[in-house]
Amino acid sequence: MIRDKVNRIIFGHDTGPSKLFDVVLLWIILISVIVVMLESVPSLQVRFMSVFSYIEWTITILFTIEYIVRIWSSRTPFRYILSFWGLIDLLSILPSYLELIDFGFHYLLAIRIFRLLRVFRILKLVRFNREAQKLLLAIRGSSHKIGVFLMVVVSIMVLLGTLMYVIEGGENGFTSIPQSIYWAIVTVTTVGFGDVVPQTVLGKFLSSIAMIMGYAIIAVPTGIITVELAKNKSADKICEVCNHDNPDDANYCNQCGLKF
Amino acid sequence: MIRDKVNRIIFGHDTGPSKLFDVVLLWIILISVIVVMLESVPSLQVRFMSVFSYIEWTITILFTIEYIVRIWSSRTPFRYILSFWGLIDLLSILPSYLELIDFGFHYLLAIRIFRLLRVFRILKLVRFNREAQKLLLAIRGSSHKIGVFLMVVVSIMVLLGTLMYVIEGGENGFTSIPQSIYWAIVTVTTVGFGDVVPQTVLGKFLSSIAMIMGYAIIAVPTGIITVELAKNKSADKICEVCNHDNPDDANYCNQCGLKF
Amino acid sequence: MIRDKVNRIIFGHDTGPSKLFDVVLLWIILISVIVVMLESVPSLQVRFMSVFSYIEWTITILFTIEYIVRIWSSRTPFRYILSFWGLIDLLSILPSYLELIDFGFHYLLAIRIFRLLRVFRILKLVRFNREAQKLLLAIRGSSHKIGVFLMVVVSIMVLLGTLMYVIEGGENGFTSIPQSIYWAIVTVTTVGFGDVVPQTVLGKFLSSIAMIMGYAIIAVPTGIITVELAKNKSADKICEVCNHDNPDDANYCNQCGLKF
Amino acid sequence: MIRDKVNRIIFGHDTGPSKLFDVVLLWIILISVIVVMLESVPSLQVRFMSVFSYIEWTITILFTIEYIVRIWSSRTPFRYILSFWGLIDLLSILPSYLELIDFGFHYLLAIRIFRLLRVFRILKLVRFNREAQKLLLAIRGSSHKIGVFLMVVVSIMVLLGTLMYVIEGGENGFTSIPQSIYWAIVTVTTVGFGDVVPQTVLGKFLSSIAMIMGYAIIAVPTGIITVELAKNKSADKICEVCNHDNPDDANYCNQCGLKF
Repeated sequence: MIRDKVNRIIFGHDTGPSKLFDVVLLWIILISVIVVMLESVPSLQVRFMSVFSYIEWTITILFTIEYIVRIWSSRTPFRYILSFWGLIDLLSILPSYLELIDFGFHYLLAIRIFRLLRVFRILKLVRFNREAQKLLLAIRGSSHKIGVFLMVVVSIMVLLGTLMYVIEGGENGFTSIPQSIYWAIVTVTTVGFGDVVPQTVLGKFLSSIAMIMGYAIIAVPTGIITVELAKNKSADKICEVCNHDNPDDANYCNQCGLKF
Repeated sequence: MIRDKVNRIIFGHDTGPSKLFDVVLLWIILISVIVVMLESVPSLQVRFMSVFSYIEWTITILFTIEYIVRIWSSRTPFRYILSFWGLIDLLSILPSYLELIDFGFHYLLAIRIFRLLRVFRILKLVRFNREAQKLLLAIRGSSHKIGVFLMVVVSIMVLLGTLMYVIEGGENGFTSIPQSIYWAIVTVTTVGFGDVVPQTVLGKFLSSIAMIMGYAIIAVPTGIITVELAKNKSADKICEVCNHDNPDDANYCNQCGLKF
Repeated sequence: MIRDKVNRIIFGHDTGPSKLFDVVLLWIILISVIVVMLESVPSLQVRFMSVFSYIEWTITILFTIEYIVRIWSSRTPFRYILSFWGLIDLLSILPSYLELIDFGFHYLLAIRIFRLLRVFRILKLVRFNREAQKLLLAIRGSSHKIGVFLMVVVSIMVLLGTLMYVIEGGENGFTSIPQSIYWAIVTVTTVGFGDVVPQTVLGKFLSSIAMIMGYAIIAVPTGIITVELAKNKSADKICEVCNHDNPDDANYCNQCGLKF
Repeated sequence: MIRDKVNRIIFGHDTGPSKLFDVVLLWIILISVIVVMLESVPSLQVRFMSVFSYIEWTITILFTIEYIVRIWSSRTPFRYILSFWGLIDLLSILPSYLELIDFGFHYLLAIRIFRLLRVFRILKLVRFNREAQKLLLAIRGSSHKIGVFLMVVVSIMVLLGTLMYVIEGGENGFTSIPQSIYWAIVTVTTVGFGDVVPQTVLGKFLSSIAMIMGYAIIAVPTGIITVELAKNKSADKICEVCNHDNPDDANYCNQCGLKF
């Protein structure tokens, strides 16, 4: 049937036409993202407005057609529409149409940059995807430890920020506890913007301890992830067409026969 | 007996009522911490003063009741009062009462943020706690090596700061040795606020070496922690009710029968 | 034959004369690079112009002779000219000659700093090179995982930058999406220049999350590289004279007899 | 003999008197370092000049006596004087005496901070020292790989700095190649002072790549050190009295009988 064939091309990644479709889509997305970026530069916007508008509408129409075909060819259209990728697909075209009605909130157009996420669906290719899944498994496997670490770090930041607010006070830029916590985050993560810096001796002393600590405790999540990655677990293979869960060493989906 | 039952609910984490108690307490603490934060923002303070005051006093009274019940239900009340958690509990309510007497030092109220630490007692839950203990064991197991590392790093910071003080001098912001050491800490930890920067050629050269070194030696604590975490030691189980030290594979405290 | 002998001295690293040649060349390159650097300092340029010019031309002529001898003595001259090292060799002398014709673009001379890369050919010595190759193998072996990581990080930076552009807007320095993405890169990598900083509450909140994330996810590539390095693969030995691929435990090239 | 006994007390760390000597010396050094620091703070210097002067001269005289006794009791006095620790001991007292003659260069006094290094001789204690030696062994064992890494990183910094000098030019703060290389070091190490920032589009693009790279390649030395630390080599025991090299499991020096 034509619908199944189209489904294979759009949702699959294994046949010749589906690979071609992926590559073409990849390039359109990248061009689209670059146009969204360049459009926001005032000097370019003035000069190339009509060019940007032309490219943008071409891409929006292409994406709209693709969206409709995806719904039409999907075996479970509503599940697709409400799925993560379905919503991203909608988010990629909606702002352009909304712009037609409401010219007020121009920043809305920047939302189209979320089209970038569509790249990740295409990159669900065999080799690339497997590495990504291994990383995900390692991160998931260490999520409890990372969670403990983040809770401790965030608590330190909250307490440090509050102490700095008491020590330094508003006249040195530590105008409120949330503002001081923001400063503590900037400092402990070693970002160090330098827009607010401690002025008192005690504040500098406390910051010094916080900086050395922030510098050293990065060792903890690194150790956690390294140990987890060393286990080198392999992931189950989820069929991208029928969503069936196959074991790691499967070469074909045992439900729909998709080649991994 | 009622006292033992209350003790179980308040100090334990295994029965239905004690779990409910924990969850309710967790939310009250989080709300309380957020109120302390928001209260310090001048614009919000003016607008919502009465709301904040109302929430704050409700929470203080709840915490006071809880504190009294904890003392009453504890088998060893004085040990509880003088324990780490007992002192944190006291610190959570004291500033509000002190504020009633002395309106002078308003910053005192910020101390209430230490209520945040109470969250960690509640989070002494099975899975979460076990991960935290593994991390603690790894950090404790590598404390000697980390100690050596920190001593060397701090010494480098002291020597670098002093050298920069000699090279740059007060006119470039290196006004004293402690101030220069503070700068060295900011630099070696790669925070880099940029409020004080070297101006002389020699100062820039020395900073460059310090920065590259600071950038590379972070590898050392990371390596230490990773190797220690890879050993994956498991912790003894300390009973939270009777403080008895049970082996790692225990499911119940062999003294009071608490389920882990 | 004289040509083969010269080839051995220039391209090989094993005999007495070739080692002497390497050491002399190494020093000339380092002096040359330092001269290029110092020449760019306005105060020194004025004072030592003639000295710099003298050293520079001596080195350029030496490098030119070396380049010609390398072509002459090479068995495959065209392959050498078009090889990576051949192009670097040409790049090392070309700017000086171009400067003679065209005085317009003085910055061109800075290109001579690429002479520095020539050091790496000389450093293709046994022990040093083997370590470098092990590192390269580890990086290559983890390139897929690192690729996934970089893609995710760059995507986060693009989305974060766009969101900050929408939230903060041009008046706070987030003048366009590319500029905001640049800011996001500065922030997530924990560099934190501080020339542009968020001003709105929402912007600071989003930045805080981005900073904590940027601070923690550095653990991922570290874990990847560590696990790969732990495998400690050894590299094949590529003969530097005849480019033959020998096994790891070879002591002599089995084609031309070069001692490794 | 008295000289041997004194030698044991001063150079050894195992007997009761030598341990007492170490602890007393440790405190004197720390006090001395703090005095040197505080003396450099203008406001404190004016107020406590006589106190600082009194403490300083007491310590200088104590250190001078110690230095003389060390020479006298040493079996090889000249070797001691010219050894690393001998020179540090001399450096600890010399500035104070030089100050008596020459009042011109007041900054000279800051050199006394190198007394801090004397702490490390005292800390050559069994447990602490063993950890330090394991770390040193791991760093030494990976020195070739770390060397390769640092060479590549420094080369990247030199090339990046030069490119930024060409792209940005003097009007944006990139006034010379060395200055631009300094900026590249500040950026790639993620310190990011922010006193000089790129202004051109190309400069920002190049910096972005450099920052992401600098952020990611920290993984390499971390991996190297972790793998080396995992080998957990144990160090030979060098006798601190007679410098004899004993195997790792020795409890006493097999030459002079010192207990480790």
